[in-house]
Amino acid sequence: MGRVVVDVMPKPEILDPQGKAVANALPRLGFGQFTAVRQGKRFELEVDGPVTPEVLEAAAAAAEQVLSNPVIEDVVRVADIEADAAATVASQGLA
Amino acid sequence: MGRVVVDVMPKPEILDPQGKAVANALPRLGFGQFTAVRQGKRFELEVDGPVTPEVLEAAAAAAEQVLSNPVIEDVVRVADIEADAAATVASQGLA
Repeated sequence: MGRVVVDVMPKPEILDPQGKAVANALPRLGFGQFTAVRQGKRFELEVDGPVTPEVLEAAAAAAEQVLSNPVIEDVVRVADIEADAAATVASQGLA
Repeated sequence: MGRVVVDVMPKPEILDPQGKAVANALPRLGFGQFTAVRQGKRFELEVDGPVTPEVLEAAAAAAEQVLSNPVIEDVVRVADIEADAAATVASQGLA
């Protein structure tokens, strides 16, 4: 069983009220170092079997056609979740 | 200027109606290979200057305390966006 991650973010020129609200809350809560926040979506798509190049291609198509609104959003990542795990391990060493 | 990515997903035992709706829509739209979908959130936090271990630590704390609801959500990743970029390049070669 494989999993594909699709990340979708609001385009830079689009207002992001959710991100703005978080950005305003962070300094009040002791996190003054963060100067801006954008909030997007993360999807995890499950497939039977391994994540082949064909599966990634289908996920990229689904990301453009179903998971994002291309007028206001960009698909910023389509990847096998295994690649993701490597980055997580790197960051958890610091947490 | 650096950016930290924080990914938050609903816990596995928590119902995810948004993900369910997407999972039901995909086969109708020609993407029958995806058997399940979970939908979470992706935050991008901007800092002045580079992403140091201290920044990642603050981001991990903000992720637990502000960006997620620990009763129903897990923080699945806190990482420098550069690590993310490597994974994106890998997947774009296939898209």
